[in-house]
Amino acid sequence: MKNWEANIRKVVPYIPGEQPTQTNVIKLNTNENPYPPSPKAAAVIKTTDTDSLRLYPDPAAGKLVHAIAKAYHLKDDQVFVGVGSDDVLAMCFLTFFNGKSPILFPDITYSFYDVWADLFRIPYETVPLDDNFKMKPEDYFRPNGGIVLANPNAPTGIELEQGSIRRILEKNRDCIVIVDEAYVDFGGESCLPMLEDFDNLIVVQTFSKSRNLAGMRIGYAMASPSLIRYLNDVKYSFNSYTMNRLVIEAGAAAVEDDEYFRACCDRIIRTREWAKEELRARGFHFADSRTNFIFASHELVSASELFEALRRAGIFVRHFPKERISNYLRITVGTPEQMKALFDFLDDYLPGASTRM
Amino acid sequence: MKNWEANIRKVVPYIPGEQPTQTNVIKLNTNENPYPPSPKAAAVIKTTDTDSLRLYPDPAAGKLVHAIAKAYHLKDDQVFVGVGSDDVLAMCFLTFFNGKSPILFPDITYSFYDVWADLFRIPYETVPLDDNFKMKPEDYFRPNGGIVLANPNAPTGIELEQGSIRRILEKNRDCIVIVDEAYVDFGGESCLPMLEDFDNLIVVQTFSKSRNLAGMRIGYAMASPSLIRYLNDVKYSFNSYTMNRLVIEAGAAAVEDDEYFRACCDRIIRTREWAKEELRARGFHFADSRTNFIFASHELVSASELFEALRRAGIFVRHFPKERISNYLRITVGTPEQMKALFDFLDDYLPGASTRM
Repeated sequence: MKNWEANIRKVVPYIPGEQPTQTNVIKLNTNENPYPPSPKAAAVIKTTDTDSLRLYPDPAAGKLVHAIAKAYHLKDDQVFVGVGSDDVLAMCFLTFFNGKSPILFPDITYSFYDVWADLFRIPYETVPLDDNFKMKPEDYFRPNGGIVLANPNAPTGIELEQGSIRRILEKNRDCIVIVDEAYVDFGGESCLPMLEDFDNLIVVQTFSKSRNLAGMRIGYAMASPSLIRYLNDVKYSFNSYTMNRLVIEAGAAAVEDDEYFRACCDRIIRTREWAKEELRARGFHFADSRTNFIFASHELVSASELFEALRRAGIFVRHFPKERISNYLRITVGTPEQMKALFDFLDDYLPGASTRM
Repeated sequence: MKNWEANIRKVVPYIPGEQPTQTNVIKLNTNENPYPPSPKAAAVIKTTDTDSLRLYPDPAAGKLVHAIAKAYHLKDDQVFVGVGSDDVLAMCFLTFFNGKSPILFPDITYSFYDVWADLFRIPYETVPLDDNFKMKPEDYFRPNGGIVLANPNAPTGIELEQGSIRRILEKNRDCIVIVDEAYVDFGGESCLPMLEDFDNLIVVQTFSKSRNLAGMRIGYAMASPSLIRYLNDVKYSFNSYTMNRLVIEAGAAAVEDDEYFRACCDRIIRTREWAKEELRARGFHFADSRTNFIFASHELVSASELFEALRRAGIFVRHFPKERISNYLRITVGTPEQMKALFDFLDDYLPGASTRM
């Protein structure tokens, strides 16, 4: 072994969902929005002054921060932006979790939380969800170095009611509580109004799902000005210019196009509710999803078998070969046409499917 | 004090150069390229399929990595890309500098190095440049946890000859040596060929200066496949999708347009050599710059006074109120017209300037 190898930070990285290069697949594996970005965001890109790209962007990404703040009735100093919500969450972990007590998050949740904890050498404990994959608020009523909750949770799709979030916050005024609301716009309820009562709350959202811009990389945190200041100090110590010129302009245009945003979310919610019925009729069971995906298990066919069969048919969904959830598939809600193709495949593939026709 | 404040990582952030929002200023303060990006990169942005922005980008940014590797006659697995060279350097610090011995870098150099060391709690020692702001290779012939050299150095603009870099590498086979070549394309010599002899060498470059794309945020590291793998593991533990879809496409187009790249660099070098004569004639002294800036001190007027006077006249340069260099201005090489405006101002402002006319 080389001597310098001893000083290397060795980690087990997060494995993102597959991004196939073929274009003829039905991609229901990484929870992207099936509809294109706001035409207003697209127009901003097409008409941008490319000459200005020789210049650094505004390090504070002021225009984008302001657009987000305005959309959520906040002050600009309550908003922090990053290169996707992963960047925002990584910055939060690095900034706020430097104590000796373990931070807490569910055993089944976004699988990046333990990766960040390992990366930054943050002690953590996972808190088991109950047998129905529900969070039990009282499990978080104990000393800790911070709490991270995805709500609605991923990959389960289950929403924790606001009363429970409030109880967790009331019992944890001494630590930072991050609520990761990546999927909240698909019929969930945001805890954003609780910012008024809790200066230790950080709400994280993203443009990758409900704002149709996974390819542009925009995430944001909303919190008290004091927490946002600490986050920005760390961000400016890491990389001053994270948001590029096109991101700032297109992101602001996207968030300003509220009508398009709501229309896309409504369509996805309607497709999801229909997809629930169709999946149920084909022998799947699942908790009630408030997201743009359904986390489902089949009564007869194993998830790993179905995952492979779907893949061979050019339909990509997500499978986590992990304890407790290895018999589930996470199926992104696509367009009605994409979902129809999925159901048609299932009708051919599932045992006894033809008798149900 | 709130209890959670004890767990916050408190840092003194890097302060980037001012990005004025007015457009009528002459901006010679952050070493941007005075010429627009390659028309081919611009065309890629204008004609991009904006619908595809709903999808995540390739997490490996394969197309951009390949274009860079091809341009430098490397294999794809020898290239790592990030959101500007600041992101790349931050990832290098986080990945490679986890020992107890201090890392070494010059006392006068890119002022982000000590910020990253502080952020990640990396022990470091600064090594004084000599009285002419030159690096002395033998100062780096001692045990250390890693070495970071900007070459040409910033903000001095001085290049260390390749023989000295090689001697430093030969004496430091046990540690990682990063050579930050942000400015190398303006007449400097790259140590890239030394990658063949040293598997502990990392060469970092950027699209922000010589590739006219500061506004897109692209930097890259070139090293042995083993070091690139460690870097990618940490990157995938931090943020899987750092390079957005437009960045990957436009960046690849920019690096493929070699002719435009060389033409812009040549023009800037010619303007710089002319600017050196003009500055010298007006009472400035400076070391021989191999970059797109000149780090100059005036024989009669203090740098802070000149900085303010220039600023009032709408000419932005950079001043570092820091020991040893507080009487210098870092002046970016702009277009000939921009430099002419600077000289005209100096002719009016400097004492006795009229008598030299």
